[in-house]
Amino acid sequence: SVETESGRQLYLSPGKGGCATCHGETGNEPVMPMYPKIGGQMEMYLINQMQDYKLKKRKNGLFVPMEVAMEHYSDEDILQIAKYLASF
Amino acid sequence: SVETESGRQLYLSPGKGGCATCHGETGNEPVMPMYPKIGGQMEMYLINQMQDYKLKKRKNGLFVPMEVAMEHYSDEDILQIAKYLASF
Repeated sequence: SVETESGRQLYLSPGKGGCATCHGETGNEPVMPMYPKIGGQMEMYLINQMQDYKLKKRKNGLFVPMEVAMEHYSDEDILQIAKYLASF
Repeated sequence: SVETESGRQLYLSPGKGGCATCHGETGNEPVMPMYPKIGGQMEMYLINQMQDYKLKKRKNGLFVPMEVAMEHYSDEDILQIAKYLASF
């Protein structure tokens, strides 16, 4: 939809964080069994986790790829991606 | 089912961690928008997150209730709960 298109582009773009490479197109096709399904999560949960990785506050599990990925996204980008993922 | 019944009991029991109080019966009815949906996640992801909270390695967001809740569960309990939640 128009409301989620911007987030979809940011989420899918391989030149940015490349989210879909690990989480799949809707966020629910993790390529590894230690990755979460993120499609359909609450918008606030998604925003908080992305910000925590960006601000290096979530340090458990495979956090390094997420810290690197989130460097590519602004606060506004994160809101848009959250809106896209929450729409599933 | 027989395979998930033990995990279901551990997950639902109010006398243990009380998981369902915050996450809902299937794990996908969070009572707060900053809580994740955990039903249908991969078994390994679920085990890792529960262990990380138990071992105090996940320190972002609202981790305190999860650290307290996980004190009630053994490693075997965690495996059973993960099997239950992954079944959705």
